[in-house]
Amino acid sequence: MFTYKTTIKLHETDAAGLLFFSNQFKLMHDAYEALLESWGFGFAVLLLKKDYFLPIVHAESDFKAPLFVGDRITIEVKIAKIGNSSFTFSYTLCDQNKKVVGTGKTVHVTVDKKSRTKIPLPPDMRTTLKKFA
Amino acid sequence: MFTYKTTIKLHETDAAGLLFFSNQFKLMHDAYEALLESWGFGFAVLLLKKDYFLPIVHAESDFKAPLFVGDRITIEVKIAKIGNSSFTFSYTLCDQNKKVVGTGKTVHVTVDKKSRTKIPLPPDMRTTLKKFA
Amino acid sequence: MFTYKTTIKLHETDAAGLLFFSNQFKLMHDAYEALLESWGFGFAVLLLKKDYFLPIVHAESDFKAPLFVGDRITIEVKIAKIGNSSFTFSYTLCDQNKKVVGTGKTVHVTVDKKSRTKIPLPPDMRTTLKKFA
Amino acid sequence: MFTYKTTIKLHETDAAGLLFFSNQFKLMHDAYEALLESWGFGFAVLLLKKDYFLPIVHAESDFKAPLFVGDRITIEVKIAKIGNSSFTFSYTLCDQNKKVVGTGKTVHVTVDKKSRTKIPLPPDMRTTLKKFA
Repeated sequence: MFTYKTTIKLHETDAAGLLFFSNQFKLMHDAYEALLESWGFGFAVLLLKKDYFLPIVHAESDFKAPLFVGDRITIEVKIAKIGNSSFTFSYTLCDQNKKVVGTGKTVHVTVDKKSRTKIPLPPDMRTTLKKFA
Repeated sequence: MFTYKTTIKLHETDAAGLLFFSNQFKLMHDAYEALLESWGFGFAVLLLKKDYFLPIVHAESDFKAPLFVGDRITIEVKIAKIGNSSFTFSYTLCDQNKKVVGTGKTVHVTVDKKSRTKIPLPPDMRTTLKKFA
Repeated sequence: MFTYKTTIKLHETDAAGLLFFSNQFKLMHDAYEALLESWGFGFAVLLLKKDYFLPIVHAESDFKAPLFVGDRITIEVKIAKIGNSSFTFSYTLCDQNKKVVGTGKTVHVTVDKKSRTKIPLPPDMRTTLKKFA
Repeated sequence: MFTYKTTIKLHETDAAGLLFFSNQFKLMHDAYEALLESWGFGFAVLLLKKDYFLPIVHAESDFKAPLFVGDRITIEVKIAKIGNSSFTFSYTLCDQNKKVVGTGKTVHVTVDKKSRTKIPLPPDMRTTLKKFA
């Protein structure tokens, strides 16, 4: 389990006074980026040095409680599934009182950068995912 | 069925060269706002004049093909379900060649502004949804 | 003069109820992208086919009146200056009542894609800018 | 002087591979929010408990070097000016090698929430700004 902490920013809220729903997905991705970074697979490395992409083919979220500007949240990231050429992360967002305010999931596939076709999980990625799972 | 047209902007893409995934949700919401506007229920009216909110409690998307800056897309919005105190919209995104590039769903509940509790669909909302469905 | 029309989206507002200030810059860039597109220099062409970038080295805005979700705005884009290796666009944002709600400026330089150094305005760009000015 | 640290996220970059220019303004505001928070004037307090707003009437930025996803940056915030009914913050963004990559400024006015008119700096705000300057 990986934990990412952040604070809700004003630009992440909308005129209804709360976090705009698509920003929960953005925050989940921020947590995922920090997780990859902690593995030495940060996006700078992925984009410049790896010969594969990890595009998201499915994403979903449940929104359980409103979030306000200044709220300090924690996002827990877990591996939900490791497939042949895909993997799934699950996310749990908690507020400063440890109340679950949202959950989510992203499904990623591994795609070859040149051919732009789906490939089996590259060994370095598979090893890292298994160690973490 | 309601149709919304837009063009992918540079700020909606990321360093991988494609539409950033959470921006598909944002674009779906833009289409939903245009739909409400066409009903005379635009967000300005909703926020200032109505005594209920329509928060999203669940959202999901499938990403079927990459989108680039400048791509002209069409988003079709349909009502997938009308419940007692909730309704669901479904979205289909097509590129300029009418190829489906993404699909999605948002589930909304009706919440009383003062009590912040779930209420049955207000009559004006129910009537409008039924007429459209 | 080039004119771009758009509607303020919910995600462009914040919990203070108005357009978040940095989104005026984003909207100015949307107008600039539409202008380039109208010239046949859209960002897809720029990024894939041209051997130069047009990065922004300076940007500024004045905010003259608040904008709400649903407001229909018009952005006028003009060329304020054509230099040796730079050009400046100016922007005027008006609301549905033709009231000026904001103004802005972006200064762009021409940079060679390979060497990443400043170069004189490429002939195709200079010709296009002059025709428009 | 106040210092705010953050990491460039994928969604803050664009298809040209770098930080999208308007996101420098967004990051400057994130730093400003953290500064207010450190004073006990965070936006949650401002929006719910104070009888004034602090809207931005002018903003500008210089962009001195490109920023990539994963870059760790530091934003220094200083008070550049305290006026009768306005104040100005200046920002300096540095990368992980302490190189200045951008600078900026935001000019804020104090506006009464009810009358929506400009008012002199409220005593609590003036005292806090002076202590910090």
